Amino acid sequence: MSGKTSPQPKRALPHRFARRMNKARRSFIREILKVTEKPDFISFAGGLPNPRLFPVKEISRAASRILREDGGNALQYSTTEGFPPLREFIADRYRRKDGMAVGPEDILILSGSQQGIDLVSKALLDPGDRVLIERPAYLGALQSFALFEPEFLPLPLEEDGISLPALEKALARPRVKLFHTVPNFQNPSGITYSREKRKKVAGLVRPTAAFVVEDDPYRELRFLGEDLPPIRKYLGDRSILFGSFSKIVTPGLRVGWVLAAPGVMEQLVIAKQAADLHTNTFSQRIIHRYLLDHDIEDHIRAIRRAYKNQRDVMVDMLEKHFPPEASFTRPEGGMFLWVTLPPACSVQRVFAAALREKVAFVPGNAFFVDGEGSNTFRLNFSNTSEPKIRTGIRRLARAVKRELRKNRGKGA
Amino acid sequence: MSGKTSPQPKRALPHRFARRMNKARRSFIREILKVTEKPDFISFAGGLPNPRLFPVKEISRAASRILREDGGNALQYSTTEGFPPLREFIADRYRRKDGMAVGPEDILILSGSQQGIDLVSKALLDPGDRVLIERPAYLGALQSFALFEPEFLPLPLEEDGISLPALEKALARPRVKLFHTVPNFQNPSGITYSREKRKKVAGLVRPTAAFVVEDDPYRELRFLGEDLPPIRKYLGDRSILFGSFSKIVTPGLRVGWVLAAPGVMEQLVIAKQAADLHTNTFSQRIIHRYLLDHDIEDHIRAIRRAYKNQRDVMVDMLEKHFPPEASFTRPEGGMFLWVTLPPACSVQRVFAAALREKVAFVPGNAFFVDGEGSNTFRLNFSNTSEPKIRTGIRRLARAVKRELRKNRGKGA
Repeated sequence: MSGKTSPQPKRALPHRFARRMNKARRSFIREILKVTEKPDFISFAGGLPNPRLFPVKEISRAASRILREDGGNALQYSTTEGFPPLREFIADRYRRKDGMAVGPEDILILSGSQQGIDLVSKALLDPGDRVLIERPAYLGALQSFALFEPEFLPLPLEEDGISLPALEKALARPRVKLFHTVPNFQNPSGITYSREKRKKVAGLVRPTAAFVVEDDPYRELRFLGEDLPPIRKYLGDRSILFGSFSKIVTPGLRVGWVLAAPGVMEQLVIAKQAADLHTNTFSQRIIHRYLLDHDIEDHIRAIRRAYKNQRDVMVDMLEKHFPPEASFTRPEGGMFLWVTLPPACSVQRVFAAALREKVAFVPGNAFFVDGEGSNTFRLNFSNTSEPKIRTGIRRLARAVKRELRKNRGKGA
Repeated sequence: MSGKTSPQPKRALPHRFARRMNKARRSFIREILKVTEKPDFISFAGGLPNPRLFPVKEISRAASRILREDGGNALQYSTTEGFPPLREFIADRYRRKDGMAVGPEDILILSGSQQGIDLVSKALLDPGDRVLIERPAYLGALQSFALFEPEFLPLPLEEDGISLPALEKALARPRVKLFHTVPNFQNPSGITYSREKRKKVAGLVRPTAAFVVEDDPYRELRFLGEDLPPIRKYLGDRSILFGSFSKIVTPGLRVGWVLAAPGVMEQLVIAKQAADLHTNTFSQRIIHRYLLDHDIEDHIRAIRRAYKNQRDVMVDMLEKHFPPEASFTRPEGGMFLWVTLPPACSVQRVFAAALREKVAFVPGNAFFVDGEGSNTFRLNFSNTSEPKIRTGIRRLARAVKRELRKNRGKGA
C-alpha cells in the first residue's frame, strides 16, 4: 500500500513553461494573413517573393538529375556545416563581389537565414544582455532574439542608415552583445545604408566587444543605385553576416547561410547541430545544381526588373493618390516601402478602414518594441501584380483620406 | 576631436559567448566519423539508415509531379505548423494504429525530430530545471538539452525500460520538467519498454507536473515481437511525442513531427516560428506525395527484412566470436545494439585497438553525463552489408580479446 503512495500531491500541478516564453509574441502578420485570404482582398501585408519568378522547371530538372546521378547520397544525413561545393560557391561570390577573403570553411549553411538569429542568440546572449536594434526592426529577428531574453535598445533609422550618435551612445553601455541590422532595403522600412555609414558603423563597433549581425537577404534585389559591400568589408571578423537563397531562388527550400569568424563559427556549428543536425541535404544539392547549370545573374536581373516595375507603379500611385501629409520611402531595391502618416493619425483606425475597403498592410507598431510607430505602416510590392497594386493603392488612399478628414474634424 | 573620442577602451575587449555554450559539447561521434572515412575501414559507429533502401525513384517522381502540378506554390514560404494534408496523414496513422484521438491540429511538422528537443527545451526549461534522462541516453538529445542548462538526472535502464523506483524517486524532486525517453529500440542501447512499463511510467508521471518527452523515430523498424503503443496512449496530453520520416523514407529531407496538447503546441509553434519560420515546403510535399502514391507499409516491411538480416548476422557473429565475458543486447528492432565488457575493461583502450584493426564503434561513455559507461559501446547494424558485418565483428573480436587478455594479465 504505502509502496504505492506517491510522494506527489494527488492533483496534477499546472505545468510551468520556461520564463523566456513570457517574452514571446505570436506574429501579428500571421493573424493578418488569415484575414486577407478572402477573395477580392488585396494584401500588401505579406513579405513573400513573387512565385511567378521561381525557376520551377529548372529546379525540377536539377532535382531529377541529382537523384539520377547520386541516388541515396542526396537523401542521406549529411554534415552540419553543409554541402562543401555550395559553401565554396557562396564564399567565391563574396571574394569576387566584395574582394573579401572568404573560404568555404567560413560559411555555415542554415535552414533559412532566420535560423541564423536563433543560433547567434544561443551562442552570444545571456538573459539581460543588450541587443541594439533598428527602429523599426525586422519582426522575425525581434521574435527570435526575444526568446533569449535580451534588453532591446532600439536606435533611430535615418534615410541613409542607423543614427550614428545613437549607435555610439548605445555601444558605450555595458553588456552590449550585438547590433542587428538589415543594411540593404530594410524590412520594414526599405532604407539602405550608405557606403559612408557602413564604414562609420564599422569604426564605432571596432573598439567595443560587440558584433554587428548583418542580416542581408535582399542585397541582390537592387534595381536602383550602386551595389554596396557589407559592413563586414570594413569591420572584418566582428561582423556575422547572413545571406539567403530565399529571395533569389526560392524560399520554400529553406537554404540560407552565415559567414562568421572561426571562433564564432565553432559555436554556431555546435548550436546548429543541436538545433536540427544539418540543413536539408536534397535542397542544398538542388540549389547547388541549379547554380551550376544556370546563370544566376540572368535570373536575378529578371527578378529586379519585375520588382522595379511593381515598385514604380506603387510609388507612382502613392504620389498620385495619397494626401501630401503622408510621406513614404522610395526604396532602391527589396520588397517593401514604408508610409508615415501625420503623428496624430492612428494606423490602427486606418487599418480597420482599409480592411473595410478590402486592402491590407502591416501596421507599423508591430516593428517597434517601445509602442511607437502608431502612425506608420509597411507595404509589400513584390507579390502583387501591377493592376492589383493600382486598385489596392486607390482603395488604401480612400481609407487614409477618410481617417485624415476625421482627424482634422477632431482637431478643429 | 573630442567628438571622435570613443568612450570605449582603445583595445578590443575579447567578446564573451553565452554562458550556455560552456555546457555545449561537440559530438564525439562526428570526430569518429572523420577517422572512419578511410578506405578499408569498417565502421559500426554511425547512426545512418541504409541508403540502398531509400525510395530514390519514387522520390524523384513525386518531386517532378509536385512541381508540374503546383509549380511555385510548392517552393513558396508556407505555414509554421506544416502542410495540412501531411499533418492529417500523421494524425490518421495514430488514430488507426493506437486508437488515440489525434487531429491534424495536434501535429506540428519539424525539420527533423531533433528539432523537437530544441523547441521543447525552449518552451519548458529554465536554467537549473531538472531533466530526467535514460542511462545511457540519446546523445543528440543531451547536446540539445544541454544548451538550456538543465540539471540532468540519469536513471538506470533495465531490460524492459526505465527503472521504476528510480523514476519515482526522481519525479519527487523539485523542478523536474520532463523525462526524455526513446521507448522503442533505444539509441544507444537497443532496449524497448514493455507494455507494462509504459503503463507504469504513465502512472508515475500523471500525478506530477512533469512531461514525458517520447522520442520515437524507430518504432516502425520492429522486426521481432509485438508493436506497442506510445506512452501517450496511457498518459494522454502529458506526453510530448516525436516521430520522424528519417528512418522510414529518407533522413536528408529533414521531416519529422511532434504531437502535443494544445497548450504546449501553442508554445512550440511560437518557438518553431522563431527558429526557422517553417519546415521545407518542398520536402513536406514530396513526402506527402510519396505517401499517397505508394504503400508505406510495403516499404517499411522491406526495411525491416533488411535490418533484421543485418541484426541477425551481427548477433550471430557476436555469439560466435566475442568472449563470454562480454554481454550484449538483442534488440527487437531499430539500428543499434549495445555491448558491455567486464567492468575493469577500458573501452577507450578497446577503441584504440579496434582502430588499429580498421573497425570502429562509439565508446559508451559518450552516452552518459556522469562519466560512467567506460566498459560499454554501441554498434550500428543498419548501414553495413552482411559481409562487412562478418569481417568487422571478427576484427572487433580480436581487439576485444586482446584487451581482455591484457586485463587478466594485470589482474594476475
